[in-house]
Amino acid sequence: MLTPWEDRYSFRTKRMGSSVIRELLKITQKPEIISFAGGLPAPEVFPLEEFQRACSVVLKEQGAQALQYGTTEGFLALREMIAENIARYAIEISPDNIMITSGSQQALDLIGRLFINRGDRILVESPTYLGALQAWNAYGAEYVSVSMDEDGMETDKLEKALRSGVKFIYVLPNFQNPTGATLSLERRHNLIKFADNYGVPIVEDDPYGQLRYEGNHIRTILDLDSEFHKRNGDIYSGNVIYMSTYSKLLAPGLRVAWVIAPQEVIRKLVNAKQAADLHTATLNQFIAHEIGKTGFIDRHVHTIRKTYMERREIMLETMTEYFPAEVSWTHPKGGMFLWGIMPENLDAAEVLKVAIERNVAFVPGFAFHPNGGGNNTMRLNFSFCDPDAIREGIHRLGTVLKEQIARK
Amino acid sequence: MLTPWEDRYSFRTKRMGSSVIRELLKITQKPEIISFAGGLPAPEVFPLEEFQRACSVVLKEQGAQALQYGTTEGFLALREMIAENIARYAIEISPDNIMITSGSQQALDLIGRLFINRGDRILVESPTYLGALQAWNAYGAEYVSVSMDEDGMETDKLEKALRSGVKFIYVLPNFQNPTGATLSLERRHNLIKFADNYGVPIVEDDPYGQLRYEGNHIRTILDLDSEFHKRNGDIYSGNVIYMSTYSKLLAPGLRVAWVIAPQEVIRKLVNAKQAADLHTATLNQFIAHEIGKTGFIDRHVHTIRKTYMERREIMLETMTEYFPAEVSWTHPKGGMFLWGIMPENLDAAEVLKVAIERNVAFVPGFAFHPNGGGNNTMRLNFSFCDPDAIREGIHRLGTVLKEQIARK
Repeated sequence: MLTPWEDRYSFRTKRMGSSVIRELLKITQKPEIISFAGGLPAPEVFPLEEFQRACSVVLKEQGAQALQYGTTEGFLALREMIAENIARYAIEISPDNIMITSGSQQALDLIGRLFINRGDRILVESPTYLGALQAWNAYGAEYVSVSMDEDGMETDKLEKALRSGVKFIYVLPNFQNPTGATLSLERRHNLIKFADNYGVPIVEDDPYGQLRYEGNHIRTILDLDSEFHKRNGDIYSGNVIYMSTYSKLLAPGLRVAWVIAPQEVIRKLVNAKQAADLHTATLNQFIAHEIGKTGFIDRHVHTIRKTYMERREIMLETMTEYFPAEVSWTHPKGGMFLWGIMPENLDAAEVLKVAIERNVAFVPGFAFHPNGGGNNTMRLNFSFCDPDAIREGIHRLGTVLKEQIARK
Repeated sequence: MLTPWEDRYSFRTKRMGSSVIRELLKITQKPEIISFAGGLPAPEVFPLEEFQRACSVVLKEQGAQALQYGTTEGFLALREMIAENIARYAIEISPDNIMITSGSQQALDLIGRLFINRGDRILVESPTYLGALQAWNAYGAEYVSVSMDEDGMETDKLEKALRSGVKFIYVLPNFQNPTGATLSLERRHNLIKFADNYGVPIVEDDPYGQLRYEGNHIRTILDLDSEFHKRNGDIYSGNVIYMSTYSKLLAPGLRVAWVIAPQEVIRKLVNAKQAADLHTATLNQFIAHEIGKTGFIDRHVHTIRKTYMERREIMLETMTEYFPAEVSWTHPKGGMFLWGIMPENLDAAEVLKVAIERNVAFVPGFAFHPNGGGNNTMRLNFSFCDPDAIREGIHRLGTVLKEQIARK
């Protein structure tokens, strides 16, 4: 039966169908399931007392501003603080190079809105972040994918991919979602060089950069690129749009993230954001600023690293103990995810169905492949479940995997 | 000089240029200017203590959930509360008819994303809300406009406009932004009838419905439409997408609003919102729920009405005192705006330039006309400035108007 709505939807809905993340979030809410599927931070590390303090101070000292409309580019003091924090590690940038977004997902959406016309090709790692695919599918993007190994995108295959003509390159250099791989310094240099040769911009998505559990920090692509391109004082004007977020450092329920880009790109993004949601919640920006300005986040990130590193160890150990020899996996140096590879004759979607019956869940890897493939792969999150749940969940999953391999 | 970005923007940016609201927000930040330009609530009515209490309770009792990722459709308890509140005045609807958005601007954007293909015509009041035009221009909308009088859209002109073929009708029935006009009950019935005849949906934007200072509440178009269309229990399945917000009842810096629509439309909007920003900040939804569930908003809205009613009176009185006889204006029964009409040979944009030199500001009316016109009109906000500032600002503006008229 036709409703008045039926024939009115624009073409854009056609490719918005996949709602894998949302459906999986629903599964994780069932208490009997041990879920390695979500990408959730551990609630145990949410700094509740610090949030209490910050809310109280902000409402007491700046309540009228914190509850009022704000400017689209974001709270100036917060942008100044982000610029200062970055200057400690890397390049100096201006607050005018920064726009605050309602989570990194909004940055992905606005980048899509700004750059993608139907049929445009985006160069991505394969596998890549599902949320980016969902954001850009809505604008009709196509994808050119470059394969990865434990050092990230295989940049020796980059030139061939670039020759096919792409709008921009999208890369998650640190502890990538979904594989956990980190792009090596040498490949970062290669990436910048090729992008510069072909005049193609780079979108660098870096939500986990500070969550490193071993090895040394590798300079961001933004930082390295700023050596390549001329600068106008402290105004960055190179080839990179960089994204990061407070979701992993403080709490995702705050929905405060940021984009760093050349000023002309920021101006366009601000126009796009104004039409999309006017501005990110003022209160939340004031809270993030109040928490950040005391240096709390620098201390707090040690707690997060300690917690997640322990969970990573336990997951890796129990996988070694319970997983069949036919299954292999990555050893991420940070972040929240690792990547499992089953024998080629196993289908992760079918394994998931059985796993859910045994009350354990993961994300089948095919969802992260924009052009197909990866049917025998899986993403496992190690940040959300506590150590006992990780042991029990990996035990359950190991049993399922052994059975499935034996049946083939 | 070409940058790597220059030739990469999609066509969507071409019509995103107008940033009148944003530029005006900047003017309002200069302390010497008395601004009737913004659409800001009075910070004096922000319930700071209630926010303090709610933040504290939420973080203490539900901190881990309030800081975690949430579902795209929004916090269930908040949607249930909104459904219960509406049932007190009007129809019963299900929480499944409701999606939470990051401010009403996001609802406008997602409606555009869902329904508007380049070149689609949208039927709007003329003048209409600037934020809607900005949201929909990004999707390449064209506009068919229907003129207004003090009873709102002139529905006797509706049928001719509908015959030209439109995707949907957009209407602000209560204390419209920018004119302050309210659509009469008879015209609401006409609107529903014509929309039904032509099978065209209605988008009802109602941010100010509760801010009535005289006369009786008129039933919403959503409410009236639900009598027209079959229902499935308490699930609304008619012809209207209804929007409202906590921005005017609590505080705009919270960025929590909601959409009510048939379930099939909500499902599509949820898909679109997931790609746009995953979900509205969990913390903010919990705060709105905590404040709302105690009945606080019902009491607080009396304070807001009292404050704004007084400011409206003062503005109307001082306009009578200081404005030249050649200028007329509306008498809004609620909301935050009134509308001034100058002699046809005056250009509001030029008057504004002189006004800003004299430290008083308003929005020139042409900005609200999607198809041109209204050059001699102006929007005045009466909610933001305190009584003394209103008297002084209207005095200044009256002087400017008299001079401008004398010069012509």
